Amino acid sequence: MKTIGVLTSGGDAPGMNAAIRAVVRSGCENGFRVMGIRRGYNGLMYGDMYEMNLRSVSNIINRGGTILYSARSPEFKTEEGMQKAINVCKEVDMQGIVVIGGDGSFRGARDLSLRGVPCVGIPGTIDNDIACCDYTIGYDTAMNTVMEMVDRLRDTSESHDRCSVVEVMGRKAGYIALNAGIACGATTILIPEVPFDFERDVIERMRRTQKAGKRHFIIIVAEGVGGVQEMAERIQRETGVESRATILGHVQRGGSPTVRDRVAGSQMGYRAVELLKEGTGNRVVAMQKDQIVDFDIFEALNMKKSIDLDLYRVAHEISI
Amino acid sequence: MKTIGVLTSGGDAPGMNAAIRAVVRSGCENGFRVMGIRRGYNGLMYGDMYEMNLRSVSNIINRGGTILYSARSPEFKTEEGMQKAINVCKEVDMQGIVVIGGDGSFRGARDLSLRGVPCVGIPGTIDNDIACCDYTIGYDTAMNTVMEMVDRLRDTSESHDRCSVVEVMGRKAGYIALNAGIACGATTILIPEVPFDFERDVIERMRRTQKAGKRHFIIIVAEGVGGVQEMAERIQRETGVESRATILGHVQRGGSPTVRDRVAGSQMGYRAVELLKEGTGNRVVAMQKDQIVDFDIFEALNMKKSIDLDLYRVAHEISI
Amino acid sequence: MKTIGVLTSGGDAPGMNAAIRAVVRSGCENGFRVMGIRRGYNGLMYGDMYEMNLRSVSNIINRGGTILYSARSPEFKTEEGMQKAINVCKEVDMQGIVVIGGDGSFRGARDLSLRGVPCVGIPGTIDNDIACCDYTIGYDTAMNTVMEMVDRLRDTSESHDRCSVVEVMGRKAGYIALNAGIACGATTILIPEVPFDFERDVIERMRRTQKAGKRHFIIIVAEGVGGVQEMAERIQRETGVESRATILGHVQRGGSPTVRDRVAGSQMGYRAVELLKEGTGNRVVAMQKDQIVDFDIFEALNMKKSIDLDLYRVAHEISI
Amino acid sequence: MKTIGVLTSGGDAPGMNAAIRAVVRSGCENGFRVMGIRRGYNGLMYGDMYEMNLRSVSNIINRGGTILYSARSPEFKTEEGMQKAINVCKEVDMQGIVVIGGDGSFRGARDLSLRGVPCVGIPGTIDNDIACCDYTIGYDTAMNTVMEMVDRLRDTSESHDRCSVVEVMGRKAGYIALNAGIACGATTILIPEVPFDFERDVIERMRRTQKAGKRHFIIIVAEGVGGVQEMAERIQRETGVESRATILGHVQRGGSPTVRDRVAGSQMGYRAVELLKEGTGNRVVAMQKDQIVDFDIFEALNMKKSIDLDLYRVAHEISI
Repeated sequence: MKTIGVLTSGGDAPGMNAAIRAVVRSGCENGFRVMGIRRGYNGLMYGDMYEMNLRSVSNIINRGGTILYSARSPEFKTEEGMQKAINVCKEVDMQGIVVIGGDGSFRGARDLSLRGVPCVGIPGTIDNDIACCDYTIGYDTAMNTVMEMVDRLRDTSESHDRCSVVEVMGRKAGYIALNAGIACGATTILIPEVPFDFERDVIERMRRTQKAGKRHFIIIVAEGVGGVQEMAERIQRETGVESRATILGHVQRGGSPTVRDRVAGSQMGYRAVELLKEGTGNRVVAMQKDQIVDFDIFEALNMKKSIDLDLYRVAHEISI
Repeated sequence: MKTIGVLTSGGDAPGMNAAIRAVVRSGCENGFRVMGIRRGYNGLMYGDMYEMNLRSVSNIINRGGTILYSARSPEFKTEEGMQKAINVCKEVDMQGIVVIGGDGSFRGARDLSLRGVPCVGIPGTIDNDIACCDYTIGYDTAMNTVMEMVDRLRDTSESHDRCSVVEVMGRKAGYIALNAGIACGATTILIPEVPFDFERDVIERMRRTQKAGKRHFIIIVAEGVGGVQEMAERIQRETGVESRATILGHVQRGGSPTVRDRVAGSQMGYRAVELLKEGTGNRVVAMQKDQIVDFDIFEALNMKKSIDLDLYRVAHEISI
Repeated sequence: MKTIGVLTSGGDAPGMNAAIRAVVRSGCENGFRVMGIRRGYNGLMYGDMYEMNLRSVSNIINRGGTILYSARSPEFKTEEGMQKAINVCKEVDMQGIVVIGGDGSFRGARDLSLRGVPCVGIPGTIDNDIACCDYTIGYDTAMNTVMEMVDRLRDTSESHDRCSVVEVMGRKAGYIALNAGIACGATTILIPEVPFDFERDVIERMRRTQKAGKRHFIIIVAEGVGGVQEMAERIQRETGVESRATILGHVQRGGSPTVRDRVAGSQMGYRAVELLKEGTGNRVVAMQKDQIVDFDIFEALNMKKSIDLDLYRVAHEISI
Repeated sequence: MKTIGVLTSGGDAPGMNAAIRAVVRSGCENGFRVMGIRRGYNGLMYGDMYEMNLRSVSNIINRGGTILYSARSPEFKTEEGMQKAINVCKEVDMQGIVVIGGDGSFRGARDLSLRGVPCVGIPGTIDNDIACCDYTIGYDTAMNTVMEMVDRLRDTSESHDRCSVVEVMGRKAGYIALNAGIACGATTILIPEVPFDFERDVIERMRRTQKAGKRHFIIIVAEGVGGVQEMAERIQRETGVESRATILGHVQRGGSPTVRDRVAGSQMGYRAVELLKEGTGNRVVAMQKDQIVDFDIFEALNMKKSIDLDLYRVAHEISI
């Protein structure tokens, strides 16, 4: 009976539990002994792991976060850390590991693969900032959480003829901002991928929609742009509309995952085990054009992706 | 100034308002006079319509249902009905109509196009049963509504060691059932597209998972399969597990739309106006592989699509 | 170190876990050994219980259902069943039991108290049908679940000018129906506590509101009244408004509890342990006029309560 | 036909629309002409009002915010402002006004009553900081919104063994913080009404629960206490647990109201019209011990209320 492991690394994302569940269930059904490794690469270095069975993953598909916990692990990036992990893998005769996380986690998976422990990555991050994927686990839930929160802000903005300037997560990427911004009918969406002129794109747009009778406004600002406090002050000064800045914060990371995140997590976990079953490592499972595919990790880490500018144009035209 | 119209027809779906909003906003921005036609083809036959402006569609993107109302219209399928509609179109000099609805509504759009009123269809139905589309407006929200309801049923099923046999919408298609079933960790999913043997696929599976320690069960049954009451009785009789049938009903049609339904509705509405601007009619806007595309209506109505059997296999393997 | 137990009995209700958590935490803090008894009185008769500590109840306050499971237990009502339970209590030297459930469960608690095992009841049922309480655990969550579902039905009813006739839970009591009915703006609310004349209270009211311009309708019917299918048919026949019956079903029992259910469950669990600490048994903890109080079980079982007819009148006047 | 008015003033709160609806419906049913006054006392001073009928308030009971808009009005506090309002009241022959808002709004209602325009106040504020009321409209929704957001934070705190220090609204009152804190299982709750020693009540408590095996923590801090950023830094420094501060912000004000807020809003609006019908002004409608009552405004403004310290003790004991 061969042993494989599963771990979650980096920021947690809703749907990670669905992926863990699929890896464990599919692993057990395929005759593997499946070890749950706690707190990412930390657990791997220090042997903090336990054998999981079909029931270990019951009733978790609907829960946010990760039952295996997550952590950053600077030590793992050192040669000593890597050596500790390799030693643990030898002790338990680890035949493969599924690593659920982001780009940083995949680098670790690549390095382990190179040293003889075949690893398969699954993209799990709310930010959707992994180049080989159109879609990462947690992204759909995070967008919907943002939307629900902004829908609530809208009630109070509308009641008071105010402008809400809202910073949403996404690190250096504007995916959450762009989609949630369209979904909330934001007057302007500012993302790092598209240069903007504050006067033209915010102030002038607001004035134009004011002429069309609009009295309350939502401005969505990606984390990678930032500066919402100053923006709110400037808007109030220049337009006379009472303005408030809101930073949505870590609430965006949690919550019960959506259908899409649960299904994608399940599919990706299943595919990862298929790859390990075939003895293939150093791969990343991905979703492209709604299909589950997989890539070499090296290749995946060197890809680029760009945001959908058509979508940006749609946003611009219909949010008047 | 050219006049175009927009109507919703057939069953309502969350996200239709996002599409209406995009048509109106984009129409106005492109210099059209946009008429909102009430209650589908009925409103067209009887001239029940009103001019909409940028503010007519404020604060609707987050609301379920359709602000233009919907209705079935048998009269419109008759030659007399069609003639009434054509006459109304002539009166207001209608240069194009955006029809948001399902296959049946597209047939009407095709017939109007043939008689000189260019129509563009937008797929709006929770059932996702339109052949030319991977995805229809309302589908994502409906799946998530089903999932939330089944998550609630799970609480009580688990507390009482019961089996819940749940019928979910989808008419003759199993898309909602398959995806929501995976998302809810259903032990078995029965859909019209895949033949099943009740003894093997339900009873035997339940017995097997019972041996693995499971004591509560969710069985998801598509509307096109039906018969949940009898199934619940048979399950209780054969397995001894107390079983309850639930038909989720029309609750599945409503609710505030998800990000995906709001964004797709916006994109499709925008594209529909682009087509009318170019003078093109007899087209259906669609989403394929996450891209907005469009098809000739004749062609679209003759397409076939099949459910993702890989997904069915994933469901089967990991829901043990 | 004295031993006490906690069990949940009868139908599960959201907030039961908050009460279990408070009993366990408060029990441990007061120096008790706390046993979690599984599946109500069944677990008591067969010794199916385990020792709980502060961490046994971590991360459950937000979960629906009951982590101790629940069951009906006809055997416990027999002399033999009672004797089994008493024997188990002697074996583990049980000094008291907290019973979370409804009237039926309190009868068992009374009988155990009479035989020397002091029991304290906590009212846990979504139906709010316990005479000594203004409010029972689970009631607030169930009302809000009903409201959210009817809000969704409203979207589709409004879009199609339909009438939705909705049966909601509550057994023989109309509390959920009355409150959720007001909250959803139901045109008519039918409850077992108030006799009605269908022609006058449903048909005539609908006609009157039709004259005031209303075209879609919600009729809320308590489980104790029933007959929604026939009502929908009669409404359609007599008013011409397309009508649909919906039975909301067991979805109403589940879901993450509201603040009120979590707080009340916590307060009641805490009070129950206070009583056992004083050596008091045969009591029911209750909420009256927003205060936590407690009653003799005999007394509690003989109380009567009546529904707030003022509230019914408010509903009648403002839902036009 | 006598004329009455209704306005919302101060911060908006979910459930205000239910109260407006009840005032309008009940007003119309009792033969009044009902004027909706926009943007609080501003609309009264400048005659910005419109006649409402039964249908003006259709489909609003489920919506957050206020359809009459709200605003602060420093001008109304001047003698000139008051005179403008009185003049407008004379012009339309205003026989009474229902004022939905907080303490500040009630002072205006008192002054208008003194000058011959009978006013009735309805307590609408999420903060529950009105002395004559156990419960104010919007409070229940705000608590549940906070709870849902903290439930989400919990997912990510748990996954990363972190401490979340969360500031919640309530101005100078700790009601939201105390109840939401219990509901979320907060390790410590800091409110302005109870003095605290940070070392003892936060750091020591965390250390104690750490010994009991807990690795993630929620600290709820009322707005009236503040300082979450510094607290998070201190916690991290002293306990070594990675800590993050979150200020939930204006999201807490919005959202579809709960059953309780919709029902209480309906009852209070109904009672306010009853009072005006009897010619009574200068009253505040209130909820005390779950009953609708009313008070003289002078009296109401001089009342004191204190937070439930028993509840604080429960929180302290069971959140270990």
